Amino acid sequence: MAEKKLVEDITSMEEDFAQWYTDIVKKAELIEYTSIKGCMVIRPYGYAIWENIQRILDKAFKETGHENVCMPMFISESLLNKEKDHVKGFAPEVAWVTHGGSEKLEERLCVRPTSETLFCEHYSNIIHSYRDLPKLYNQWVSVVRWEKTTRPFLRSREFLWQEGHTIHATAEEAIAETERMLDIYADFCEKSLAIPVIKGRKTESDKFAGAVATYAIEALMHDGKALQAGTSHYFGDGFAKAFDIMYTNKENQKVYPHQTSWGVSTRLIGAIIMTHGDNNGLVLPPAVAPIQAIIIPIAQHKPGVLEKCRELKGVLEKEFRVKIDESDNSAGWKFAEYEMKGVPVRIELGPKDIEAGQCVVVTRHDNKKETVPLDSIVEVIRRKLAAVHDGLYEKALQNRERRTYICHDMDSIVKSIAENGDGFVKAMWCGDEHCEATVKEKTGVGSRCILPDAEPVGDTCVCCGKPAKHLVVWAKAY
Amino acid sequence: MAEKKLVEDITSMEEDFAQWYTDIVKKAELIEYTSIKGCMVIRPYGYAIWENIQRILDKAFKETGHENVCMPMFISESLLNKEKDHVKGFAPEVAWVTHGGSEKLEERLCVRPTSETLFCEHYSNIIHSYRDLPKLYNQWVSVVRWEKTTRPFLRSREFLWQEGHTIHATAEEAIAETERMLDIYADFCEKSLAIPVIKGRKTESDKFAGAVATYAIEALMHDGKALQAGTSHYFGDGFAKAFDIMYTNKENQKVYPHQTSWGVSTRLIGAIIMTHGDNNGLVLPPAVAPIQAIIIPIAQHKPGVLEKCRELKGVLEKEFRVKIDESDNSAGWKFAEYEMKGVPVRIELGPKDIEAGQCVVVTRHDNKKETVPLDSIVEVIRRKLAAVHDGLYEKALQNRERRTYICHDMDSIVKSIAENGDGFVKAMWCGDEHCEATVKEKTGVGSRCILPDAEPVGDTCVCCGKPAKHLVVWAKAY
Repeated sequence: MAEKKLVEDITSMEEDFAQWYTDIVKKAELIEYTSIKGCMVIRPYGYAIWENIQRILDKAFKETGHENVCMPMFISESLLNKEKDHVKGFAPEVAWVTHGGSEKLEERLCVRPTSETLFCEHYSNIIHSYRDLPKLYNQWVSVVRWEKTTRPFLRSREFLWQEGHTIHATAEEAIAETERMLDIYADFCEKSLAIPVIKGRKTESDKFAGAVATYAIEALMHDGKALQAGTSHYFGDGFAKAFDIMYTNKENQKVYPHQTSWGVSTRLIGAIIMTHGDNNGLVLPPAVAPIQAIIIPIAQHKPGVLEKCRELKGVLEKEFRVKIDESDNSAGWKFAEYEMKGVPVRIELGPKDIEAGQCVVVTRHDNKKETVPLDSIVEVIRRKLAAVHDGLYEKALQNRERRTYICHDMDSIVKSIAENGDGFVKAMWCGDEHCEATVKEKTGVGSRCILPDAEPVGDTCVCCGKPAKHLVVWAKAY
Repeated sequence: MAEKKLVEDITSMEEDFAQWYTDIVKKAELIEYTSIKGCMVIRPYGYAIWENIQRILDKAFKETGHENVCMPMFISESLLNKEKDHVKGFAPEVAWVTHGGSEKLEERLCVRPTSETLFCEHYSNIIHSYRDLPKLYNQWVSVVRWEKTTRPFLRSREFLWQEGHTIHATAEEAIAETERMLDIYADFCEKSLAIPVIKGRKTESDKFAGAVATYAIEALMHDGKALQAGTSHYFGDGFAKAFDIMYTNKENQKVYPHQTSWGVSTRLIGAIIMTHGDNNGLVLPPAVAPIQAIIIPIAQHKPGVLEKCRELKGVLEKEFRVKIDESDNSAGWKFAEYEMKGVPVRIELGPKDIEAGQCVVVTRHDNKKETVPLDSIVEVIRRKLAAVHDGLYEKALQNRERRTYICHDMDSIVKSIAENGDGFVKAMWCGDEHCEATVKEKTGVGSRCILPDAEPVGDTCVCCGKPAKHLVVWAKAY
C-alpha cells in the first residue's frame, strides 16, 4: 500500500502536464518552495544534478581556455543605464536595493539580472593593448529577474547559471567564439543530458537586449512545447563603445574590441524533467544522475544480504555513483522511491541471488529486467548506463521527429497542431516582423530560431507568400 | 629595468603593512575594484585560489556526510525578525531590496547576510519525525553585509563563503558537529594553507547573533594582528523555538531539534597573503596555488628550448598544476612576475641545462636554487612542494610563537607589545564583561577566544585580580 501511495500522488502527464511537472519537482525532492514567491530552495538531490552539470561544463570551458572569475552581484543604476538597448530590456524586471542598513543609498543598485555591464566596467579597467586580448571569462553565480509568473527551474525570480563573457581583438574571433560555445552547449545537451537540440539564430525581435546576434539551442519537451536551453550572443563593438573600452592594436591605433556572452542555467534541470520524465517520476540521464545505480537489498534481515550489498557497492563505487538503501522501508516502497527519483539503474540482491552468484538489474527508462552474474557486474552496469543514455536520446529524438511539421501555409500549421499536438513547425519566412507576429497571433506558434544552414522547405513566406529569406522553426515555448 | 619596476611598485611591509597588502592584491591580479565601494571583482588568479579551497573543503564536507543545497538570496523582513538576537545582530548591516522592476514590494527583502533564517524556514517544512534527522547541509554562495570600512578579502560588502547548517535530534549530536567542523577547519588551515591556528570559544560579547556558543579558529598575521579564519556555532534549540521546528521522537513526543552553523570565506585568501607574503609579493601554499610550478625558458629563441620546456610540462602536468611562460618578456621579468604571484616553485631551463640534462629549481619562499637532473624532476617537484608547505608552516608558527606573550597584569601586556610588537597575549580572565572591555580599552587587545582545554597560566584575572575562570587569547584583530 505504501508503494502505491507514493506513485498515486503524481498527476499523470496526459491528464495535466503542468501539474505532473510540479508534482515531480516536489516528490523527487528537487526543490521546496519558500515564503517568497519565485524563490525556491534547491534541495540536495536537485543541487547534486546541478553540480554534475557544472562539473562537466566547467571542464569543457577550461579545456577551451576559459577562466572563472566572480563579479559583484550589484550593478549601480548609472552603470546599467550605459547601454541603451540593454537597460530597456532588463530594467523593467530588476530588483532594486535602496538601503544599506538604515541608510538610504545615494544611488540605487540592482541585483544583477545578467552581468554584461559589470564585465564591461572591468574590461575598461584592465584592457589597454592587443596583448591584453582575448579575455575568455566565465562565472557561476545566481541572477535575479523579477518575473510575474514563476515555475521551478523554468522561470524563477532567482536562478543559478553560468555566464561566459569574452572580449576579442576582432569581430571574426568573437563570432567564432559565439559559435564555438553554442556547439559546446549542443554537444553537452546531446552527450550528457541525452536531449537532442536544434541550433539556430534568434530573429531580431527575440534577440538579447544589446546583442548584434543571438544564437540558441532549442529542445522539444514531451508535451510538444519548445524550451530554450542555452544562448550565445555576439555583441560586435556596441558594448565597447558604450563603455569606452579601447585597446591599442599592433599598428598603434586605438580601436574597439568585440564581445560575446553565453549562458545556460538551472532551466536545464527543467528540460531534463520534461524530456525524459514519465508517470512514475523523474528519469535521469546517467551523466548527471546523483545516483547512477541504487542497490536494493531483498529480504535484508536475512543473514549475509546487507554484507553482500555493501561488498557490491564497494566494487561499483570505484567507477559509478552508487548507493544502497538500507532503510527499513519495504523493497516495493524503495523501488517506487528510486523510480520517482529517476535513478537510471536499480540492482536487486536477495538471498536466492546471492546463492546463485547473480543479481537483478532493472533499467529505469524501459523497466527491463535482466538477471546477471555478480562477477561481471561492473561491465554490465557500464553497458546499462550507456544503454540508458542512448535509449533516452533515441526516445526524445523520436518524439521530436514525430512532432516536427513542415508547413507551407498558415492553415496547415493550425491543422498539424490540431491533429498531432504541439510541436516544432518548420516553415519559411520573408524576414518581416509583421509576418512573424501574424504567425504567432493566428496559429499560436512563435519563431524559435532561424536555421541558417538548413535546406529551405520552400520559396515563399508561410504568412505573406512573398519570397522567403529564412527557414524558421516555430513553436509554443516555455 | 622592467624587472625592477614590477617589484618597486610594492610598498615594503615594514614601511606600511596595510599598503603592502593592498599592493599585493592588485599587483598579483587577485582582485580589481569596481565603482561600488566594498564590492570587488575576483580575477582569474584570485578565483582559482578560491576554487582550490572549495575543492578541498567540499570533499571534506562530503566525506563527513554533508550535502550541498542552495537557498534563495533574499530574506523577507518578517522572516529575519523571527529570532530576536539574530535580527539585532544583522539588521543594521543588511542591504534592503524595496522594488521589483517599477513596483514597490509589499514587504521589503534583505539580501542574505547569513542564512540561518532561510534554513529554519526550510527545516520547518521538511522535518517532522526523528527519521528526518539529522540534516547536514552546506551551501557555497555569497553574502552581503553593508560594512562602513572595507578591505579586499578581509571585509567587503559582498563576500564568497560556505555556510554549513545542520539540525540534529539531540544537543549532544549538535555539539559534536560544532566541534567536528571546527576541527575540519583547523586541519584545513594547517594542512592545506600552512597556517597554524588556535581553536577556542568566543566570549559572550563576541558570539554570533543567536548562538548559544561560538567557536573560532584564530590565526596570527605577519604584523602580529589576529585574523578570525573560521567559525562554528552551536545554537541549542533557540532557532527551532523561534521558527517552530518540531519533530516527533521515538517515544512519540513532539520535541525541538538542535542546530549548528559554520563557515569560512574568501577571508582565507587574506589570511594566506598576510601569513606567507613578503616584499616580493604573494607566497602561496602549494595545495591551493593555481600554478604549483612555473617553467621559465632561458634564451627561448635558441633551437630546442621551447620544445624541451613543453616536454617537461607534459611530464609534470600529470601530477602538478604547471605552466610555461612563453611570452616575449625577459626571463628576469618573468622571475619577478611569478614571484609576485607567489608560485611555489620556479623551473629554469636553458640551452646549457638541456645539454647537461638538468634544470634549475628555485623555491619561492626561501629563494633557494638547486640544479637537478631532468630525469628525476617529478620526484624533485613533489619533494620541493612538500618542503615549501613545511617551510611556510614552520615560519608562520615561529612568528606566532615569537609573538605570543604570557601576561599576568595589564602593564605587562602594554610592555610586551611596546617592546616586541603586536601579537597574541595569553592572560587569565575572571569572566566579567567589564574586565574584558577594560583590557581592550587600556591595552588595545580584545579577547579573541577562550582556550577551554589549555593549561591555565595563572589563577587571577589579568584585569581585576579576582579568581580567574578562563585562559583567554587576546590580540588586536582584523
